[in-house]
Amino acid sequence: MAAQRTAELRRLLARPYPWVKKSFIVGAPMRIMAGPNLAVAVSAAGGLGFLGPQVKPDGVLADLDKARELVAASSLRHPLLPIGVGFQVWNGDLKIATSAVEKHKPCAVWLFAPRNGQKELDEWTTSLRGASRDTQVWIQVGTLSDAIAAVNSLTPPDVLVVQGSEAGGHGMAKQSTGTIVLFPEVADAVKESGIPVVAAGGIIDGRGVAAALSLGAAGVAMGTRFLASSEARIAKGYQDEVVRASDGAKNTLRTQLYNHLRGTFGWPELFSPRTLINRSWIDHEAGVPFEKLQVLHDEAAKSGDAGWGPEGRLATYVGTGVGLVRSVQDAGVIVESVRNEARDILKALTDDI
Amino acid sequence: MAAQRTAELRRLLARPYPWVKKSFIVGAPMRIMAGPNLAVAVSAAGGLGFLGPQVKPDGVLADLDKARELVAASSLRHPLLPIGVGFQVWNGDLKIATSAVEKHKPCAVWLFAPRNGQKELDEWTTSLRGASRDTQVWIQVGTLSDAIAAVNSLTPPDVLVVQGSEAGGHGMAKQSTGTIVLFPEVADAVKESGIPVVAAGGIIDGRGVAAALSLGAAGVAMGTRFLASSEARIAKGYQDEVVRASDGAKNTLRTQLYNHLRGTFGWPELFSPRTLINRSWIDHEAGVPFEKLQVLHDEAAKSGDAGWGPEGRLATYVGTGVGLVRSVQDAGVIVESVRNEARDILKALTDDI
Repeated sequence: MAAQRTAELRRLLARPYPWVKKSFIVGAPMRIMAGPNLAVAVSAAGGLGFLGPQVKPDGVLADLDKARELVAASSLRHPLLPIGVGFQVWNGDLKIATSAVEKHKPCAVWLFAPRNGQKELDEWTTSLRGASRDTQVWIQVGTLSDAIAAVNSLTPPDVLVVQGSEAGGHGMAKQSTGTIVLFPEVADAVKESGIPVVAAGGIIDGRGVAAALSLGAAGVAMGTRFLASSEARIAKGYQDEVVRASDGAKNTLRTQLYNHLRGTFGWPELFSPRTLINRSWIDHEAGVPFEKLQVLHDEAAKSGDAGWGPEGRLATYVGTGVGLVRSVQDAGVIVESVRNEARDILKALTDDI
Repeated sequence: MAAQRTAELRRLLARPYPWVKKSFIVGAPMRIMAGPNLAVAVSAAGGLGFLGPQVKPDGVLADLDKARELVAASSLRHPLLPIGVGFQVWNGDLKIATSAVEKHKPCAVWLFAPRNGQKELDEWTTSLRGASRDTQVWIQVGTLSDAIAAVNSLTPPDVLVVQGSEAGGHGMAKQSTGTIVLFPEVADAVKESGIPVVAAGGIIDGRGVAAALSLGAAGVAMGTRFLASSEARIAKGYQDEVVRASDGAKNTLRTQLYNHLRGTFGWPELFSPRTLINRSWIDHEAGVPFEKLQVLHDEAAKSGDAGWGPEGRLATYVGTGVGLVRSVQDAGVIVESVRNEARDILKALTDDI
């Protein structure tokens, strides 16, 4: 019966996105890196791609213009723009976001990281729904309490995204746990809402997708895996690191240090990014003052691709699953192979157990 | 092909334990709590139960005697004792362990937490294999590097157990990550060895079992779930907490504090236990000195079951999945329902995607 219920939620998630094939694979809205080429490639392969936030809030307009062109040149046909758009609420601009959504009518918006909790998400949701009635609102949470707050709010989301502690980029700074536990506990807590729940955090290949579906996910969001896609908007030095690095348990950590070195201040304390450890962190731990690290960082930034790597100094946001990423592939190949692998795994298990 | 390979490893794991039904569910060797009643009940239900270490190393002898009686009264028939025995290597006694294994010939031993790494595991493995040729050696690791060291050692284990950061009781103090990532990265790294790998950490119900199998696990070990079994050797106050508690991401943490309050010192620094947060921790964080906490703890211990709970002070080791444990059931019911649920989930998914 529980299995039937999750099948219903999978159907509910899929209905507004008819081009998306089973299983429902989402390209997460990684800031800067998930640009128009990646988002549209994921959707064109039968997934759902999201644009990430740009360097400045109004960058979304150029990205949406470009995405619209790419969609027109693809086989994707849908009344709405068949990609989603992600916003970091705390440093987003609701006016720009609203006018962008009104103009381009993306099929979904993905909201994350409010400074003032659900109240701020309510404002955003109301404004964005006002701008485009059929655009679905996805809310990303990383805790049980935030999930419950979202589904019981004045403006419950159409889709809830639950991010486990494995995730790269920004997530909960503390009090988080792995997807294998966080996801089912949240799913149980919000099941009365009838809102489909998407799993994020640590999902890299078909094994992770099959696992997340087993946990009851209606869909699965992948970020780190798409950093190593041909279409990612990412420096080669960074991308090489994603492919090279292994053992994310040992070689990544959550810290604001790299944000600050990049000049990004003001993230709400609840959140922090996971990054690969390199010289900036090692020196910081050894007591080198921030001002000195900043100088070294800025020099490294001028060195281009050499600025990344174990001896480099530049921010390399990745999830703990980075060790499972072993080559750069086209995003469409990733979507298809992950989908096929997940199906093969589930079929083989069903036959065997 | 990868799916075939994992099916072979599932068969390889199962061969020496012919009474164990698919999927291969293991009762983890929780110290004290996994006594003879629990271990034998898990095996009798078609799983594989392990005795946990006892208060003192020679406690294993009484537990094995008792287990032998229980097995004789059950329908279990096997040339070896059809339960396993767990040892904490750092504070175990190899001489006692060896003579216990020689006398009782358990089907498996599970080794964890050496003070001196793989070298110490080699000594234990050699001695225990010498005592009982057909007893299989299981080694539990929590890091990629320890997994690689184990399979490349002089005495590779028969089975490798990989424990994710969600786990309760003792695990890696640092540099760990969730099962959804740690397991597949380890499995890939050791695949040439042909050693089957069992997943542990965050597996509470059929969803977790199906997820772990999807990740490629040959079997799944559960601890926290069995704390809430009729057969667990656990105080009622503790067990009530396991059922009551939710949101393990928020309400548990890793700390040596509770070990020290119980008078257990000397754990190798690599390891720490995960426990529910209660007054001992809150007061510790507020700066109450250890000596004062000790007095309060010892008073609480005299109060019996009231010593546990959010306002209690006693150690309550659990995994982050504690919120998924909602009732006390017989261990056999747990094994069977988890097995059935996992099968139903996988079948429904295969039909649907």
